[in-house]
Amino acid sequence: MELVTMVKSKQSKTVEFVEAEPRSALEEFVGYNLKRAYVTVQHDFRATLGQDGLAPRVFSALSLVVQFPNVTQSALARMLGIERSGLVAIIDELEERGFLLRTTVPGDRRVQALVPTQEGQEALKEIFEAVREHEARLLKNLSHDEKQTLLRLLQKIWMVED
Amino acid sequence: MELVTMVKSKQSKTVEFVEAEPRSALEEFVGYNLKRAYVTVQHDFRATLGQDGLAPRVFSALSLVVQFPNVTQSALARMLGIERSGLVAIIDELEERGFLLRTTVPGDRRVQALVPTQEGQEALKEIFEAVREHEARLLKNLSHDEKQTLLRLLQKIWMVED
Repeated sequence: MELVTMVKSKQSKTVEFVEAEPRSALEEFVGYNLKRAYVTVQHDFRATLGQDGLAPRVFSALSLVVQFPNVTQSALARMLGIERSGLVAIIDELEERGFLLRTTVPGDRRVQALVPTQEGQEALKEIFEAVREHEARLLKNLSHDEKQTLLRLLQKIWMVED
Repeated sequence: MELVTMVKSKQSKTVEFVEAEPRSALEEFVGYNLKRAYVTVQHDFRATLGQDGLAPRVFSALSLVVQFPNVTQSALARMLGIERSGLVAIIDELEERGFLLRTTVPGDRRVQALVPTQEGQEALKEIFEAVREHEARLLKNLSHDEKQTLLRLLQKIWMVED
């Protein structure tokens, strides 16, 4: 990325780049680098799980339902950091795949709790393995310490007290 | 985030959380933490620039057009890491705001180059100031060294040689 060759054609007067992209002024911003890194990881995540695989947010939801069986939709939305309205399609997909059940609660039928099925638990185990391998492969040029540092710094950003 | 209180109501049998969210198994994954951190930063970015402000990717595009006047749409898409088709709406918005012009190239009318207007350059200066303040405020619990480390590690992820 260091070597920059800008080509200004006399005929076209346009700017194109060959061999390497130039350094962009945006690289000073944490937000820009977060986005680029996330897009890189997400792209490989989707390629790893395949066309019929769970999207990252659906995987996250399944993981939490398995970790916290009987979790309410409100609590799940809060843990995922998304709006409750955004959760409905995710829960629908997991229910259609047979990975969880919506249960109604005796005494308060307005509240629905989410319970993982056996199939959902087994699927999650396999997905966890695949995701661990995907991250190990994708982040192979980061040392163990660098990975731990990265996790700690990212969590300092998003785990902010309200 | 450390203190977790799980409340299991005898009546409802659902799981809710009070006082603090529990630690999720997802926190071991770099991808999950990248997403959460990006959502946090993006939310504050949009709040900073206001309802009529530029979205992050539109800001990024303007910044590159100002930095590299006469850049082609292909080169711009590549620098942003997005598909050329995704760029059209962004360029349209910047043109409508009067921040850039599409110029045709003498000798090859198929190629369009992008040129920032004076208004676009002045707007960008103000936005850069606002974005720097937003990041300084949002990341105030990261030291200067931590910020530099974070940038370096994120760039190790996305600036991968093909």
